[in-house]
Amino acid sequence: MDKILLGHGSGGTLMHRLIDEITAPSFDMIELNDSATVNLPHSRLAFTTDSYVVSPIFFPGGNIGDLAVNGTINDLAVVGAVPLFLSVGFILEEGLKIDTLKEIISTMSKSAKEAGVSIITGDTKVVDKGKGDGIYINTSGIGYIPDGIDLGIHKVKSGDKVIVSDMIGRHGIAVLAERNGLSFEPPVISDTTSLNKLTASILDIKGAIKMMRDPTRGGVATTLKEIALQSRLNIEIDERLLPIPPAVNGACELLGLDPLYVANEGLLIAIVDSKKANEVIEVMRRQKISKNATIIGEVLEPQKNKDSLVIMNTTIGGRRVIDMLTGEQLTRIC
Amino acid sequence: MDKILLGHGSGGTLMHRLIDEITAPSFDMIELNDSATVNLPHSRLAFTTDSYVVSPIFFPGGNIGDLAVNGTINDLAVVGAVPLFLSVGFILEEGLKIDTLKEIISTMSKSAKEAGVSIITGDTKVVDKGKGDGIYINTSGIGYIPDGIDLGIHKVKSGDKVIVSDMIGRHGIAVLAERNGLSFEPPVISDTTSLNKLTASILDIKGAIKMMRDPTRGGVATTLKEIALQSRLNIEIDERLLPIPPAVNGACELLGLDPLYVANEGLLIAIVDSKKANEVIEVMRRQKISKNATIIGEVLEPQKNKDSLVIMNTTIGGRRVIDMLTGEQLTRIC
Repeated sequence: MDKILLGHGSGGTLMHRLIDEITAPSFDMIELNDSATVNLPHSRLAFTTDSYVVSPIFFPGGNIGDLAVNGTINDLAVVGAVPLFLSVGFILEEGLKIDTLKEIISTMSKSAKEAGVSIITGDTKVVDKGKGDGIYINTSGIGYIPDGIDLGIHKVKSGDKVIVSDMIGRHGIAVLAERNGLSFEPPVISDTTSLNKLTASILDIKGAIKMMRDPTRGGVATTLKEIALQSRLNIEIDERLLPIPPAVNGACELLGLDPLYVANEGLLIAIVDSKKANEVIEVMRRQKISKNATIIGEVLEPQKNKDSLVIMNTTIGGRRVIDMLTGEQLTRIC
Repeated sequence: MDKILLGHGSGGTLMHRLIDEITAPSFDMIELNDSATVNLPHSRLAFTTDSYVVSPIFFPGGNIGDLAVNGTINDLAVVGAVPLFLSVGFILEEGLKIDTLKEIISTMSKSAKEAGVSIITGDTKVVDKGKGDGIYINTSGIGYIPDGIDLGIHKVKSGDKVIVSDMIGRHGIAVLAERNGLSFEPPVISDTTSLNKLTASILDIKGAIKMMRDPTRGGVATTLKEIALQSRLNIEIDERLLPIPPAVNGACELLGLDPLYVANEGLLIAIVDSKKANEVIEVMRRQKISKNATIIGEVLEPQKNKDSLVIMNTTIGGRRVIDMLTGEQLTRIC
């Protein structure tokens, strides 16, 4: 493989290989996680970056602007940080309508205010017509990790419960429908939203949360597989418990997609102490963005001398091994 | 003006208007400066972002990779910060050669090590062939501002000296020559380099440095005009003192460019207390990247009831008003 493929950007195995083989060894990426966390003399910071290249730039439920703000906030939130500051870097294509830019910026401003973060520094570059696609946005973010927060793969143990905060697969299908001029009834709306208030509320439950992730590119399946690999434990989920909107299911059937691999932009996966799982679910369900929170499975010891797996007990009584997304299922989804 | 023009990315008046009218009012950009600085409970941080879209991606003296690392380090360094951590966000065009990416990443790694900063978090997106131009890179950076550092426009006073750290106009001409298949004898090599060791060394001279900037897009002229406007003071420079390599002068004549507006990527402009200016020059000249450091002019009171101006006393004895770059002189230069 000597050329970049679209699949290198899809969040699956190709991207993982690119990171593992080329990017990570060259830099100082401490954890291959959504945010890096660093010790400053007196406070523990989280620092993250994401570029957004979603196509089309407007879709049901949002646009590239709130996606860029919420996505970076969420990368901070899932490592347990309180997001504080964002930067924004625009790469604009010559000919982009100023009104389009204004609308996107206004959405960004609104989303940042809603989440309680400040966009404090920025940069704008313009590329020739035909060398971009309207607008690409990078947001980077910093937050601080309150004392006492200790999350991470090292906390995950056999018996922990796997929680998803709400309905699966909405963002990817909303973007794909818009891109292809499809409409579903009822329409599928992107779940793009900031998760920092949700994460703060469940981190308040003492000893409950082991680790969190937001399953964007690559979907729930890829994130669960990453957690299984990193923890060297199995994850077993139950297909009947997966909260998938009927419209997403229908669209996926039509398009030959698997909702488990479809991107989410306002969804939280939490690995939770089994004794606290119901309390976490209760706290989540009180909040609008997580009113369908569900325990979808649990963490288990892998079979002796076997690799760690994600296994789904299917509706029809079978057992299916869930792997990472390979190649491109949905490109330019965020 | 309802569409984005290439000139919106050139660092001059168009970009300033875009920032002033659209971007800054929507966000929380505290200072329209290279880095935002923020108070955390126990330490003062600097935070900055820049996207790099230089074309071509390889040029004499560097490539988009060291440009992206050095540029963001320099944005931190000029606000007096000690750069600590960088993020990197790649936007790759489908079909980019993996070897090209590897070479760029290896350059980034080397530049970061040389400057003593760590690249700790990253993101990769891929766009379809024809929707990018090989590779775009965003780097964001955080650093801390040591106790006692107080720089900024509020410190600039009439009588202060204006210092440039080395030869002017090299990066822009190097890129332009490469883009257009021109070669000059001797060749013009980009000045891309990190300035953080240089800035640290002159900040050690007590009370010397009032403020610093790195004159990238828009060149020395645009940066001086920004300083004049923000300080409401005049700046008067002497054309005979400007350190311009003969090859840059020759190339500019040939291409109809003014070296004062050509981008630099390893140049420092410092506004310095007049009593300490010679000491600053001495310290600078001891370092390889600033061995041609020169006092090029000084800060003066503006004429009563007049706007603040940048004025150049020309070689032929005239006085020329220097304004910001308007529209595009050199696009995609960084």
